Formats: sequence, structure tokens, C-alpha cells
Amino acid sequence: MSGTTSARMEEDPLPCGMTGKRVLIVYAHQEPKSMNGSLKDAAVMELGNQGCQVTVSDLYAMNFEPRATKKDFEGPLNNSNFFNYGVEAHTAYKKGFLSSDVVEEQKKVREADLIIFQFPLYWFSVPAIMKGWMDRVLCQGFAFDFPECFDRGFLQNKLALISFTTGGDAELYSKTGLSGDIKYILWPLQHGVLHFCGFKVLAPQISFAPEYTSEEKRKEMVASWASRLETIWKEKPINCTPSWYFE
Amino acid sequence: MSGTTSARMEEDPLPCGMTGKRVLIVYAHQEPKSMNGSLKDAAVMELGNQGCQVTVSDLYAMNFEPRATKKDFEGPLNNSNFFNYGVEAHTAYKKGFLSSDVVEEQKKVREADLIIFQFPLYWFSVPAIMKGWMDRVLCQGFAFDFPECFDRGFLQNKLALISFTTGGDAELYSKTGLSGDIKYILWPLQHGVLHFCGFKVLAPQISFAPEYTSEEKRKEMVASWASRLETIWKEKPINCTPSWYFE
Repeated sequence: MSGTTSARMEEDPLPCGMTGKRVLIVYAHQEPKSMNGSLKDAAVMELGNQGCQVTVSDLYAMNFEPRATKKDFEGPLNNSNFFNYGVEAHTAYKKGFLSSDVVEEQKKVREADLIIFQFPLYWFSVPAIMKGWMDRVLCQGFAFDFPECFDRGFLQNKLALISFTTGGDAELYSKTGLSGDIKYILWPLQHGVLHFCGFKVLAPQISFAPEYTSEEKRKEMVASWASRLETIWKEKPINCTPSWYFE
Repeated sequence: MSGTTSARMEEDPLPCGMTGKRVLIVYAHQEPKSMNGSLKDAAVMELGNQGCQVTVSDLYAMNFEPRATKKDFEGPLNNSNFFNYGVEAHTAYKKGFLSSDVVEEQKKVREADLIIFQFPLYWFSVPAIMKGWMDRVLCQGFAFDFPECFDRGFLQNKLALISFTTGGDAELYSKTGLSGDIKYILWPLQHGVLHFCGFKVLAPQISFAPEYTSEEKRKEMVASWASRLETIWKEKPINCTPSWYFE
């Protein structure tokens, strides 16, 4: 599939006994040579070297559809007189007629032990193309139900991590900076999306202001990410409660 | 333009002396008969009755493009060897070759005294189609520059308000609820998007859990919104600082 790549490198012995761990990287950047592209490439390389099976969903290359519409349902609507996207997605998931692009992504999620979201921060959040991936792929019945959400969410045996670049520097995203503590903007993504689905959330990887720094510093940021990934399977999830974000 | 409607009702005398106030409603719901549709209709009616000129950008009806790509630029790229969306958007804005759908939305924003964002909460945020509107329309040079951001943002003479529906009830979105205080999720939207561009932010209009309540209660929520709009021009903006959100 265009925009989807897999890397598997078998070595013997495998580091950390991590044979067969599977990683999905949901990646949203238009430019392969960008900092986000480099961070994605570094993850593919490092995790591949560990013997992990790595899949990349390159959303722009796939021209991934962000809009939640009737086109997502390849069977009869539950209620064609009153369109409720969430209800229809739930129904279509159970009956097996979600559109094939959504089904493909759900298959990748189901198979993954760890999902990494790699993106540039757009307006204190993910770019719309990645928001659309969340809106469409993580539907009721697949990622959660009621009361199967938060700690009981269906994806509770998986790890997730957001890795992103910012325009502003760390000072700007501090408690006294104009943009406020960077943790404030993690809440909707980490708690509202990932924790809601049950994911155990690993600490975010934040690469501050790569556009405004030297090539050497950018390389250090990429190397730091690769280095962290060497021991990623030993990391403990964060405690995804309000105190982590707001105190 | 498909999906764009205008309403102007002239009365004499006009309430509150509000002759000629212009309102843009950026609206994201697939179903006209939905609660979001009703809230949008109520705003068009009430503001129209006041003598305001109301424009609606009905994003799904417009099939609005959420993806930030090279297609947004109808002239030569600043750097075709290394695509940086933000830089290219800034350049294209200054040189006048942003794609026509973006230009059209910027014109509506420029003319508006008040912008209302009407949407159902998707994953603690706006639906992807509305995030795409923010990503593409509010570009550098048009909505902000450096240091012209936050209180110095280019849209500082305008008011903005987010009006949305939730799935969960108010208890779920309280400080002790599983989803946490609803104010936590307003920060990226109100501070990170609206305040960043200079907008004076009015208090949000939150319609909790319309799907799980009675028709009578839903009508009350719509009536309450219409009633608030009667005196909207007298409202004072919130103090968009961390203490409003997190204390």
C-alpha cells in the first residue's frame, strides 16, 4: 500500500529479548527530509535493529481521509433519516462494513504492541490529517465501548507515545511562558484519546523548535530519540491523571 | 457557494444598536437535524433578527479540505526541495496565491466581528474537518505573525466563541469526573488557537449530552443559547490565562 512501509531486521541474539514486538508509527509530515521524517526514520531503524516489526502509516503519502462522513460505511445506515456518525461507525464496525481504509488501520492497531504518533504540533494539537485518523479509526466497538473506556478501554494491553516537534522553544512552553506549560496541551491527546482507549501512555518525546536551531542540535535531538528507544520496552507508563498535567 | 448561506433581516429600530455587526459561524456537523444543526439555526435566526449579517461555513456541505498540502499553493514554492507548510503558507499569503477555498474563508474572517465555532466534541477537541479549517485558514501573515501573536494577534478586534455538544454529561466533565474538568480541554482551542490569533474569547457554550436527554431538555438548551445571543454583544471576554482553566 502506498505510504505504508514495513521493516524487519532479524538479529541473533535480539536485544532485550524483544523478539516479535510490533510497532505502528502513525506519521504526519509532508516532507520526508523534515525533522519529523528524521525522527520517524530513526525509530524505524532503531526498532528494526531490535528485531521489532515496524509498520508506518504515512498519512500524507496515503492521502488519508480526515473527514468523518457517510462514505465510511459500505452498508445500509442504521438511520438514514438522522445521520449520527458515532452510532453508524459503531454499527458498521460490528457488522463489518466500515470502509477499507479504516479497517486497514484498525488491523495495524490490533497487531501493534506500541503505537507512536509522530507529528509537528499544529495549533496546540495534531495536524487535521492525524486528527482524522483518530476520529475515524478509533471507533466505538473497536477502541472502546461503555463502560469499557479509560482503564477498561479495549486497547489496554498496548503502549502509546506521542512524539512531536514544536515551533516555539521550551521557554515559551513553560508555566511562565506565553504558550503555557506544554503539559496542558498533552491532556486532550494523552488522556482524552489514548488513555480513553485504554492505552498505557509513555512519556511524550518533545523536540522543541528544530527550525530555529543548528543542524548539530537537530542531529542531537534525533540521536536522543533513537537512544531512548533502545530501552523503550523497559519504560513505565506515566500516571495519566490530572495531577500529572496540571500541578 | 454550496454550503454557505447568508441571512440578513433588517428591522427598525435594531436591538442594541447592532446595525451591521457581522457574524461568521464555522459549522461542522453532517446532519442538519442534529443538535448542532439546531444550535446553528438558532444562532442564524436570533442574530439575523438583531440585524446582524450572518454567514455560515457549513464545512461538511462544502466538503472542506482538512489536509495541509502543496495543493494550497497556486504559485511557485518558496523551497521546492524542502516543503515546509507554514513557511509556504506565509509566503503564499503575502504573494496572494493561496488556494481559493482558503482565501474565501479568510475573507469571511476578515469581515466578521464575531466568529462562532459550532461542533460536536470529537476526542476532546474539534472534528478533523474543523481542525483543518484552523490549520489552513489561520496562516501566518493573516491571523498572526511574530511577535504579533496572543494579545497582539492580527484578529484582536474580533470576538470568538466555541459552542459545542458533548457525549458525556456535566458530571463526567467535572474536576472529579473521569474525563476531568471540561475547562482543561478548552485551553488548546481557546488559548492555543483563538487567543493566539488575538481574538477576544467569549465564554464557551457547552450543551452537555444532548443524545442522552429528552426532546424537551434539548429544546431548552437551544432556547438557552438563543437567549444568550440576545445580549451577546454586551458580554465581556474571559480572562484567557492559565488560572481561568486550571485553578
